[in-house]
Amino acid sequence: MKNVAVLLAGSGVFDGAEVNEVVLTLLHISKQGASYQCFAPDTQQTQVINHLSGEESSEKRNVLQEAARIARGDVKPLSELNVSEFDALIVPGGFGVAKNFCDFAFKGDQMMINEQVEHVGKAFKDARKPAGYLCIAPVMLPYIYGNGVRVTVGNDADVAAAINKMGGEHVDCDVRDIVVDDNHRLVTTPAYMLAENLPDAEAGISKLVEKVLYMAA
Amino acid sequence: MKNVAVLLAGSGVFDGAEVNEVVLTLLHISKQGASYQCFAPDTQQTQVINHLSGEESSEKRNVLQEAARIARGDVKPLSELNVSEFDALIVPGGFGVAKNFCDFAFKGDQMMINEQVEHVGKAFKDARKPAGYLCIAPVMLPYIYGNGVRVTVGNDADVAAAINKMGGEHVDCDVRDIVVDDNHRLVTTPAYMLAENLPDAEAGISKLVEKVLYMAA
Repeated sequence: MKNVAVLLAGSGVFDGAEVNEVVLTLLHISKQGASYQCFAPDTQQTQVINHLSGEESSEKRNVLQEAARIARGDVKPLSELNVSEFDALIVPGGFGVAKNFCDFAFKGDQMMINEQVEHVGKAFKDARKPAGYLCIAPVMLPYIYGNGVRVTVGNDADVAAAINKMGGEHVDCDVRDIVVDDNHRLVTTPAYMLAENLPDAEAGISKLVEKVLYMAA
Repeated sequence: MKNVAVLLAGSGVFDGAEVNEVVLTLLHISKQGASYQCFAPDTQQTQVINHLSGEESSEKRNVLQEAARIARGDVKPLSELNVSEFDALIVPGGFGVAKNFCDFAFKGDQMMINEQVEHVGKAFKDARKPAGYLCIAPVMLPYIYGNGVRVTVGNDADVAAAINKMGGEHVDCDVRDIVVDDNHRLVTTPAYMLAENLPDAEAGISKLVEKVLYMAA
């Protein structure tokens, strides 16, 4: 059985992992006959956003503890991820990726990546194991994989321009579709960068999971 | 298009709504061609549980604000729910139902229900509009519907005994199946009272959504 590591950036679209994307990712990994283990960095969230008002709160929350809300407690510290135990990596989106995994939300194309996330991303690249990045998560790929990586975040002109400036090649993509970079063994899909409903997000995510598992064969 | 009100008890299995159950419920309402609106009470959570350690935290969180994490901000205060705008009600589970919607987690068969939740539940009953209750949520049904209501929470002997003592009739049920009470226009499914993986939970939840929408015809 193929085993997939799934990286969670918290729990909640505005400061953590996009909850629906995570559940749909895990659902389709299971439905397609693979197993998974969730991981998250044991660090403080960069922000805590009141998801009702959209305003920043003064609360402090921990990425790993909040990620455990989606994973029903079954999430491990990212520092414990051993790439040799997994066949593939999937990174769902949400602003937490652009705030906790890297600082794209604040620095744009001048962004840096969290050291553990960079280490894990590069470990899968170096092992030639496939990876799937959803939603905003592909902004990290030029940094992790280097120049020439072909990815999508949908059709957001500003984010696409930032990806191109960082050395990537952005490809516009429909919400129900995926972009595949065979050279780098990478699959990306817009998910909630474009999705206006759950079935649209599910269509793209299920294709991404299928392609990543196929590449892991 | 049929319109479903979905009640959220927060965000996280141990103190709020069971996240996976909520996402699967909303996914299948959409896939089956209906629309929905999420609601949650604008009240403080009874507890905040660290979902990594399982321990209670001293933090205070608001049920409506936390529910907004699953609903991407699109959740309304339960006080604004007008039963005439909806064809059916669905209540996903999670300990939040037994802690924030009622106090079953602490009082068992001596439990009381949150006033707004009771009001809304009885409004759907009195309007003869169908309702679906998942996971632990059926413990509220004897209170809301009165004696003789046929429901399931799976096969938990203690919870089943409490339901029977409160005047309900518990029926054992497989995780992938539903129990239908045609008299009361009620559908229940065990979901994460029994589910050990997402596809099992999805099978029961998708049947529940289908039956509730059929009854709403």
